[in-house]
Amino acid sequence: MAEEKKLVESITSMEEDFAQWYTDVVRKAELVDYSNVKGCMVIKPAGYAIWENIQKELDRRFKETGVENVYMPMLIPESLLQKEKDHVEGFAPEVAWVTHGGLEPLQERMCIRPTSETLFCDFYANDIQSYRDLPRLYNQWCSVMRWEKTTRPFLRSREFLWQEGHTAHATEEEAEARTEQMLHLYADFCEEVLAMPVIRGRKTDKEKFAGANATYTIEALMHDGKALQSGTSHNFGDGFAKAFEIQYTDKDNKLQYVHQTSWGMTTRLIGAIIMVHGDDSGLVLPPRIAPVQVMVIPIQQKKEGVLEKAYELRDRLKAFRSGTAEAGAMAMAGSGFRVKVDDTDKSPGWKFSEQEMRGIPVRVEIGPKDIANGQCVIVRRDTREKLVVSLEELEEKLVEVLETMQSEMLERARKHQQAHTYTAATYKEFQDIAEHKPGFIKAMWCGDAACEEKIKEDTTCTSRCMPFAQEEIAETCICCGKKAKTMVVWGKAY
Amino acid sequence: MAEEKKLVESITSMEEDFAQWYTDVVRKAELVDYSNVKGCMVIKPAGYAIWENIQKELDRRFKETGVENVYMPMLIPESLLQKEKDHVEGFAPEVAWVTHGGLEPLQERMCIRPTSETLFCDFYANDIQSYRDLPRLYNQWCSVMRWEKTTRPFLRSREFLWQEGHTAHATEEEAEARTEQMLHLYADFCEEVLAMPVIRGRKTDKEKFAGANATYTIEALMHDGKALQSGTSHNFGDGFAKAFEIQYTDKDNKLQYVHQTSWGMTTRLIGAIIMVHGDDSGLVLPPRIAPVQVMVIPIQQKKEGVLEKAYELRDRLKAFRSGTAEAGAMAMAGSGFRVKVDDTDKSPGWKFSEQEMRGIPVRVEIGPKDIANGQCVIVRRDTREKLVVSLEELEEKLVEVLETMQSEMLERARKHQQAHTYTAATYKEFQDIAEHKPGFIKAMWCGDAACEEKIKEDTTCTSRCMPFAQEEIAETCICCGKKAKTMVVWGKAY
Repeated sequence: MAEEKKLVESITSMEEDFAQWYTDVVRKAELVDYSNVKGCMVIKPAGYAIWENIQKELDRRFKETGVENVYMPMLIPESLLQKEKDHVEGFAPEVAWVTHGGLEPLQERMCIRPTSETLFCDFYANDIQSYRDLPRLYNQWCSVMRWEKTTRPFLRSREFLWQEGHTAHATEEEAEARTEQMLHLYADFCEEVLAMPVIRGRKTDKEKFAGANATYTIEALMHDGKALQSGTSHNFGDGFAKAFEIQYTDKDNKLQYVHQTSWGMTTRLIGAIIMVHGDDSGLVLPPRIAPVQVMVIPIQQKKEGVLEKAYELRDRLKAFRSGTAEAGAMAMAGSGFRVKVDDTDKSPGWKFSEQEMRGIPVRVEIGPKDIANGQCVIVRRDTREKLVVSLEELEEKLVEVLETMQSEMLERARKHQQAHTYTAATYKEFQDIAEHKPGFIKAMWCGDAACEEKIKEDTTCTSRCMPFAQEEIAETCICCGKKAKTMVVWGKAY
Repeated sequence: MAEEKKLVESITSMEEDFAQWYTDVVRKAELVDYSNVKGCMVIKPAGYAIWENIQKELDRRFKETGVENVYMPMLIPESLLQKEKDHVEGFAPEVAWVTHGGLEPLQERMCIRPTSETLFCDFYANDIQSYRDLPRLYNQWCSVMRWEKTTRPFLRSREFLWQEGHTAHATEEEAEARTEQMLHLYADFCEEVLAMPVIRGRKTDKEKFAGANATYTIEALMHDGKALQSGTSHNFGDGFAKAFEIQYTDKDNKLQYVHQTSWGMTTRLIGAIIMVHGDDSGLVLPPRIAPVQVMVIPIQQKKEGVLEKAYELRDRLKAFRSGTAEAGAMAMAGSGFRVKVDDTDKSPGWKFSEQEMRGIPVRVEIGPKDIANGQCVIVRRDTREKLVVSLEELEEKLVEVLETMQSEMLERARKHQQAHTYTAATYKEFQDIAEHKPGFIKAMWCGDAACEEKIKEDTTCTSRCMPFAQEEIAETCICCGKKAKTMVVWGKAY
């Protein structure tokens, strides 16, 4: 077992150093590699395949609500970026500037999109003429660039992959409804597919998106008690429409401004999966998102018939079609298990460690004795629970094990979040929790930015959101003691 | 019929001005829009949906051959771009340079990737250590930027979408086999899915990719007789490996250089589809790639039951699962027809024109009389052939019509290509054809770059490729009269 030990030992334990544990996992699970382009990462096959599954499922959910995909240019002329005042202030300090095309300097410099509101608005200004053209429900999958100083793979990098939806509506109400609809779509996706519970709420003015009237967010709690903003949805009202003159003629032939939204999710979600579900043996992937759900590991594979049996099981599992909807959702595309055989010349123990490091939800061990007994061993990644299963029942048992694992992972993460969500009624309590207990803190707030700022200075906690599900913890603001307006969830964030 | 006429009249006829016809189609079929970013286009939903189908099917075919997807940074530091001599000479004059990040100038400027050989090589240099790591079969889907002076939507734009495969192999033979395998995969895709016949061959040294030992290409003939390079596959030998020191230890523990390939297809394919299949009423999409295969158009839709029947047919067609493999391939994902109902308040005639303009392969007309008779009318986009079909047999007939249309479109394009492929035995003949007969010209060549250059100067024809399927047209070079080495296909190209 010396080899396996080496592989496992090479991860720092979470307890010892969570940040180092994270870095070890992203490297050892072969999700990313550092590149020679500072602040940018190489997403390797195991990491990109997770992103492909996220894309596939989110895209399907988007399209069910009428969203269509488009593609906008990756460059934004400086004058276009400057059209909306708040927006340019928010982004100009962190964009990459293109100044030369080929051998010649550009007449006007352009930035690589940090986000594409300005491009969509510029497009909509011509594209939308009449109420018949509304709503416009467009989305794009692309990469964006923000010139961050300190970076970490998936969590904060100069370039990252994402989707950005940009919609235009006839009325304020429709825009608001779409903003909330997309936030709930994101939240449901996180909970149903990534087994990651989130708090749904609204950002304070201080934390909202540059140029938005309202920003809604989903906030997840990582294993170390830090918060991760996991998706946002913005209602722009008609602010961008006025800056870009996006007008339509309504049914009474009057000119009206459109109301707009935007919403996005990024490769940061992969970081969230790692930090919500991972353990000291590496990554743990929820079955629904796992690119490989089942790894078949032959034991004594040189013995006659063992490899053949492993391949036979793989082919059976690939071809399996369950009649139940649950199994369909499990397989994401309703098209059999995602399964591989590890037929390399490494030892079984080494293969077990690798399967664990990579977070593959289930392994199937099959050796000569198992074959003789018409059985195999199923091992769950999260609990390590072993199950001896008759080969005849393999598909049925796997569906059961993967479904159970998926729901138990969500349940476990939910319990962890609940156990690390605290309530503070006094500022002393708040400071105490902030200092000693990593997690979310619920506390009342007067709505004043000065208090928000003071809390941040005193405790490094930022307001994560004003949850939709409000509670009345106290009548007065935790900070200034004036009448409280709303309950805020606070936390230290990535 | 006044309205429909207006819509149709707004396209220039191919005969009158092919370039203008092309521009009209891309705009009127709502595939792209111009943007305020010079040389860059906005790909609208109807255009992007074609690209999504191209991606889905190509990606499936790639993965069947063992390819895995990854993502590399979009920026290349100047020193990295310069590592391979031929490569930098080929690309440096046409890249966009980033010189500032946020408010500060960069220590080293970086270009937006025009292609990612240098990034993959830089990555492989660390990633590949042992023969166990080979082959590496990586691909990425992304956008790239080349600072072109004159641009046309899909055909030549500063930014375009593509995939770029980059593989590393232990031996020269393996690299060559992969290079050819991918070229044939591209060719088969064009023929089977896009109904577009191509000539498979090798580029001359003058036309090959900057840094490659050999470039293979597929060349298609557009309706106007011009050639379009539609996909390329490059064998780099160990040139890049030596420049980037990509070495592995073989089974005898000796250090060896890897052998590499790269291969790419782009959004240019959408331009090819337009120019191979389009007609004076607009776009014509091959059924297998069409985002919408069937448009149901209700007649007298305000009459009771008409719209309901239209929706019922749509739902039936969506839910249809054929038992035959052919129908599965037709539906791309084996998941029913891609079908919509046009329930807008426009007139049926206007809807017919729009369906034709957008190239939707088949429309189903259904009105009160049809419903009373238990039938509907199917109209094929390419031939306008009308078929009265009993509603009971609709699915069956549609499969038949779409299959026939797909194969007849390929056949028609093949005949057009054959009818516009000429053979020249003398230079006089060559010049005559080049001047008067748009198309491919087959002629013998000595292999001397000077002759290739002279032919280009005299006739504006470039060597498209040296086809795998060689013919011996004459014994001597068409240009210099020396002994011929190979038959070349020449043409005027986009």
